[in-house]
Amino acid sequence: MKQIVGIQEKDTRTVDELAALEREGMEVKAEGAVHRVRNMGEIVFVVLRQAEGLLQTVFDREGFEQAGDIREGCTVRVEGVLRREERAPRGVEIAAESAEILSVPAGPLPLPVDKRKLGASLEARLDHRAISLRNVRERARFRVQEGIVRGFRDFLYSQGFTEIHTPKIGAKGAEGGANIFKLSYFHRPAVLAQSPQFYKQMMVGVFDRVFETGPVFRAEKHNTRRHLNEYTSLDFEMGYIRGMEDVMGMETEMLRYVMEILKREYARELELLDVTVPEIPFIPALRFDEAKCLVSETYGRRARAPFDLEPEEESLIGTYAKETFGSDFVFITHYPSKKRPFYAMDDPQDVRFTLSFDLLYKGMEITTGGQRIHDYRMLTDKMAARGMTDEGMEEYLEAFRCGMPPHGGLGIGLERLTVQLLGEDNVREGCLFPRDMGRLTP
Amino acid sequence: MKQIVGIQEKDTRTVDELAALEREGMEVKAEGAVHRVRNMGEIVFVVLRQAEGLLQTVFDREGFEQAGDIREGCTVRVEGVLRREERAPRGVEIAAESAEILSVPAGPLPLPVDKRKLGASLEARLDHRAISLRNVRERARFRVQEGIVRGFRDFLYSQGFTEIHTPKIGAKGAEGGANIFKLSYFHRPAVLAQSPQFYKQMMVGVFDRVFETGPVFRAEKHNTRRHLNEYTSLDFEMGYIRGMEDVMGMETEMLRYVMEILKREYARELELLDVTVPEIPFIPALRFDEAKCLVSETYGRRARAPFDLEPEEESLIGTYAKETFGSDFVFITHYPSKKRPFYAMDDPQDVRFTLSFDLLYKGMEITTGGQRIHDYRMLTDKMAARGMTDEGMEEYLEAFRCGMPPHGGLGIGLERLTVQLLGEDNVREGCLFPRDMGRLTP
Repeated sequence: MKQIVGIQEKDTRTVDELAALEREGMEVKAEGAVHRVRNMGEIVFVVLRQAEGLLQTVFDREGFEQAGDIREGCTVRVEGVLRREERAPRGVEIAAESAEILSVPAGPLPLPVDKRKLGASLEARLDHRAISLRNVRERARFRVQEGIVRGFRDFLYSQGFTEIHTPKIGAKGAEGGANIFKLSYFHRPAVLAQSPQFYKQMMVGVFDRVFETGPVFRAEKHNTRRHLNEYTSLDFEMGYIRGMEDVMGMETEMLRYVMEILKREYARELELLDVTVPEIPFIPALRFDEAKCLVSETYGRRARAPFDLEPEEESLIGTYAKETFGSDFVFITHYPSKKRPFYAMDDPQDVRFTLSFDLLYKGMEITTGGQRIHDYRMLTDKMAARGMTDEGMEEYLEAFRCGMPPHGGLGIGLERLTVQLLGEDNVREGCLFPRDMGRLTP
Repeated sequence: MKQIVGIQEKDTRTVDELAALEREGMEVKAEGAVHRVRNMGEIVFVVLRQAEGLLQTVFDREGFEQAGDIREGCTVRVEGVLRREERAPRGVEIAAESAEILSVPAGPLPLPVDKRKLGASLEARLDHRAISLRNVRERARFRVQEGIVRGFRDFLYSQGFTEIHTPKIGAKGAEGGANIFKLSYFHRPAVLAQSPQFYKQMMVGVFDRVFETGPVFRAEKHNTRRHLNEYTSLDFEMGYIRGMEDVMGMETEMLRYVMEILKREYARELELLDVTVPEIPFIPALRFDEAKCLVSETYGRRARAPFDLEPEEESLIGTYAKETFGSDFVFITHYPSKKRPFYAMDDPQDVRFTLSFDLLYKGMEITTGGQRIHDYRMLTDKMAARGMTDEGMEEYLEAFRCGMPPHGGLGIGLERLTVQLLGEDNVREGCLFPRDMGRLTP
């Protein structure tokens, strides 16, 4: 019998740990992947890639040769002496005395990952995703993405939300429509979840406030720079609201919190990507019809789709919000009822519109949310008026029949939020392994 | 234009906030769902259910009648005077002066959710999940589950892991075999992910250490108390390990951290559920063959399946670990190679076995993990020996061809860990909306 007590400390150090060490001349050890080898003849620079960043090690010719065939793609363990070196990453390097090769590659890399900017096409980078992300700028995006998700959760925990995990295979889609992936579930027809909508609403009756971060699936036949067929949705739903403004206020404060966590804990990645996170003193909110008119008047663009915003209109509203209010973000409220799902609360002042909203970030929709109908009869009446049956929604409706508090919530597309923050122009840049109409691998 | 600045504070309070108030006799407001009405004639107790717990309010007859038809399932807003009352939850109550009904139910509840123990069958509770979870004990399990996931993530963040989100729709399953849900993806054959295995390994080459918490899908035709066809998997994978003991050590320390967070932040739920979290000074580790012999000798049970552990054997090993080492947990190491996936690292001392392990908790497997093959040729040789082609795994294999550090990792079944901690005997008790062979709703 062995006893496993816990983490067995290693004697190797990260580049940050080395930079924090006081004593130059200290014997140190470090591990990493060989990111670049620059052979100057008498000395050889071997730059290691670690999770935290790059670490420069320097070999003399003899030491380098003794170590074996150190080349790009190897992983190694280097022993040597710590030196300050201003020109090296984080201002330190290891004067290597010996090295052990931990693993070797079987072939050359298909992309020059050691370049500052990778330079390959998006398609090439996605085809070789496990390699292209070894570029330190490419991978930094997903560190920032981690910070977004982490901030989202931590903020909601602090506001009394409970995290939930809801099924992705179900009998019926929450939004309906044709955009549903279908599968056979032990010989029964089933679908993949378009959103956790029904579940998070049901759980408001249990926990008052809930959130989920997980995948959703949309079989939309849109192959655009804005669409993914599988994406990560950041969802929350909250009870005892006074109106949709409570949901919008929660999102505003959540975003502010996320930006703070990014500034505090992901500063290095932001710097590497040359990204400044926005200050969010407030977010302006425009009514849907008002926004449509403003864009038409201000930019001379004639609106065509009366019940929806076209991508170009969203983009112009974004421009307007930036020029007029200095804000990257703008809420659009009171979307037409006929373009919103049945569970959206209609505006009692004018039932052609709903108490719902989108949030645009730099002119792209990143959130859809709103107040929901909480009254059983109002909900079933609206379903009947739309010609819907309650098939597959019996348990959802039961929650309402048994009483539900006034509530609302939203869903945020994580990849869209990520790329808008980073200033990338394709949502695929914000997804480790995108799924679109043409892409099912890697 | 409106400005959304942030959260608009409410003037209502939670039961914990009320309990923390110094001043008895203070005017206070609170909201909640009507959990129970006890009409004593001259006074009426209306117990509200909030996210944090129950709150007692007391009406005189006149006030109760004036408030309207307050009944179970309503949500209400109560105004009144704060009083200390030892017999009430948290030692406080509100002497109600007025109440506003926020919403009303359209029918009676199908289950007596206000009872301390709900008493309904598992099937009934799952059929009416949105209602049965309104029982405060039923819902408390999922607060504990939140704590587990939160502890898992927070611990791994602190250890330099990066959180990733990998696709659930793909071209090929990681484990292979027949247990795969299939679907049509824009007229191409696709599968649902059995695990994030390939992706997290590829990302070790990028971030050194990664984790993911998300759904996985297993089309196993097992309708037992141990199986779910969709579950939440807590996965991590770490590079630069010296052996599988580094993975086991990380898990041991993670579990210890989770137990601490539960004791610190979920004490109320644990008390409600009468659960004591285990101390984990160490976790014993037994070899697979050794464990098999021990069980056979100690309990006189003849082993039948030579290459696997039967559920009853796992259960007896759990008993043995408890009796011998005082531990609820026990690692079983060195599983036979023929029962492990191709990517498992074979033991160089005896290649019939692998450097892999399971973790049993109270006699049930909750984790499978191990060291992985990191060398390209070793990996492709093992695939060839098993008659596998690289079809659908080109990008996975490319990561190895371009070099990978020694690495290993594990996957934990969240629902199993939850029910073993809580002492429940069916994994469905640890899942909000279970999916099994017979259950696709709610």
